[in-house]
Amino acid sequence: MKKFINDPADVVAQALAGVAAAHPELRVDIDEQYIVRADAPRPGKVGLVSGGGSGHEPLHGGFVGPGMLDAACPGEIFTSPVPDQILAATKAVDGGAGVVHIVKNYTGDVMNFQLAAELATDEGISVETVLVDDDVAVEDSTWTAGRRGTGATLLVEKIAGARAEEGGKLAEVAAIGREVNTHSGSFAYALTAGTTPAAGRPGFDLPADEIEAGVGIHGEPGRRREKLRPARELVHSALDAILDAKQFPGPVIVLVNGLGGTPLIELYLIYGEVAKHLEDRGVRIARRLVGNYVTSLDMAGMSLTLCQATDEMIRLWDAPARTPGLRWGA
Amino acid sequence: MKKFINDPADVVAQALAGVAAAHPELRVDIDEQYIVRADAPRPGKVGLVSGGGSGHEPLHGGFVGPGMLDAACPGEIFTSPVPDQILAATKAVDGGAGVVHIVKNYTGDVMNFQLAAELATDEGISVETVLVDDDVAVEDSTWTAGRRGTGATLLVEKIAGARAEEGGKLAEVAAIGREVNTHSGSFAYALTAGTTPAAGRPGFDLPADEIEAGVGIHGEPGRRREKLRPARELVHSALDAILDAKQFPGPVIVLVNGLGGTPLIELYLIYGEVAKHLEDRGVRIARRLVGNYVTSLDMAGMSLTLCQATDEMIRLWDAPARTPGLRWGA
Repeated sequence: MKKFINDPADVVAQALAGVAAAHPELRVDIDEQYIVRADAPRPGKVGLVSGGGSGHEPLHGGFVGPGMLDAACPGEIFTSPVPDQILAATKAVDGGAGVVHIVKNYTGDVMNFQLAAELATDEGISVETVLVDDDVAVEDSTWTAGRRGTGATLLVEKIAGARAEEGGKLAEVAAIGREVNTHSGSFAYALTAGTTPAAGRPGFDLPADEIEAGVGIHGEPGRRREKLRPARELVHSALDAILDAKQFPGPVIVLVNGLGGTPLIELYLIYGEVAKHLEDRGVRIARRLVGNYVTSLDMAGMSLTLCQATDEMIRLWDAPARTPGLRWGA
Repeated sequence: MKKFINDPADVVAQALAGVAAAHPELRVDIDEQYIVRADAPRPGKVGLVSGGGSGHEPLHGGFVGPGMLDAACPGEIFTSPVPDQILAATKAVDGGAGVVHIVKNYTGDVMNFQLAAELATDEGISVETVLVDDDVAVEDSTWTAGRRGTGATLLVEKIAGARAEEGGKLAEVAAIGREVNTHSGSFAYALTAGTTPAAGRPGFDLPADEIEAGVGIHGEPGRRREKLRPARELVHSALDAILDAKQFPGPVIVLVNGLGGTPLIELYLIYGEVAKHLEDRGVRIARRLVGNYVTSLDMAGMSLTLCQATDEMIRLWDAPARTPGLRWGA
């Protein structure tokens, strides 16, 4: 295994130390392992907390800042954050208006966020949970009952984050987050597996001419192994799988996401194919984002996410965001 | 070779089609192969044009927009853009105040930009050239007489771009660009080689426990092969090489740059080590940027760049930028 690390056991803590040094606009609690906006808690503002295993950066820590999350709880690599950690982050961002937990649908994450929500409720904090389960590839998976939460997490964090930033109430912020998830679908391809520092070798083996169709962001198996095909055909298959699973009658927000090891030149080539195929399928693109945002360490792969967007979602998507990993607007 | 492409011969043109579809704020000429701001030319504004081989994205096309470049000319992968292409981009951004060419020091780039500058001059456009040669690893290299241009290119494009945006004159914009380059130094490590679509296999072979110290962004050899060491030691060696080559008495801008295949979690871990070692060496960090910005396709690797920054450079670094690959400020 070749990685820029010191010790496989200390990667997350040492990366958090780097985040703390790099971003004075964030406050990082290295012991409790959470990242919050330096100005948290904001009185009267609904707090947004997300988290999950590390290895998906910039998700979630890179999305902490005005217009998106108030806090992120990174677990160890591909490992759920623990309830105490989530509780500490929840308390750190509670400004009296309640806190929304954005949780990707993995069994450990769901359980630990639920425990943390109960503990927070006991301390008088109102918590709503938005569960993200956008991956249409498989119904159940290695660490999931039901569909996995993947690329749509970014959309939920952006859109619900904007709603909270402009003063939305707890139920409103949670409702728009759930609406984004309900109307989103994702599908991913892996060319290679990622390598965790602890394992020291790729999470699965793929022959030199094969790919994993419908892969999960921890390398979970998808629908099938396939022979590598031209990007155009892979894009068609992925989009068709999403369009088969959910209805997209109106304009969509598109995310072309790299899984960590895929160069931007390939992601833009993919976006060109996405734009053409959606036009052929009669789906109008309202907004789009291309880059490595919801990753799986160094996995070479990509995911496509479509979100059927209302005018309200597009307005919130366009609102300013100022985070290390995603930033736009005035 | 596993890549998300259709045909190795068409990667650049098809990626440009994707850029065109994704970014209505840019205008892409697919035939002539250049990218300009949609509002170009801007009357009275000095135009900034950069370019070079493709495969280093987001450099340069991802840095076109208000506050940075007016145009980028991507060549084929790891291949210089041709003079006609550079001339077309230069004419497209000429607003009557002259054009600055930002050129990384590679023999083909230097020659072709020089020819284009002569042709532009013949057509009545004043052109100044800023040559970037920040890589302290080697004196001459595979495609270079003198030092290679690498990570500092981003700093030159950001800072000279801000100076042009605020109304700087041709000589002023070129002067601050040259000043940034003169006071910058970079050093890179590769864990693996990148794979070009045309070659279909890694550009060089590295044993499983070895790295290339001082590698170039096309996989050119560096100073030596070494055994893999902890990130902390690699950071110390790279920073010491830069600090040995140039003087950094005052505050610096730091770029921790991934070469394409390195996850963000490792880059932040590296930044933590950079911050500690620079403190030990008595060098104050004024600003910093962490991410994959000047890449070498899917190479797993990282480069460190230091720029000795004046107050003026820091003011311009902080100025707003709105480009696909780099964006901040109001």
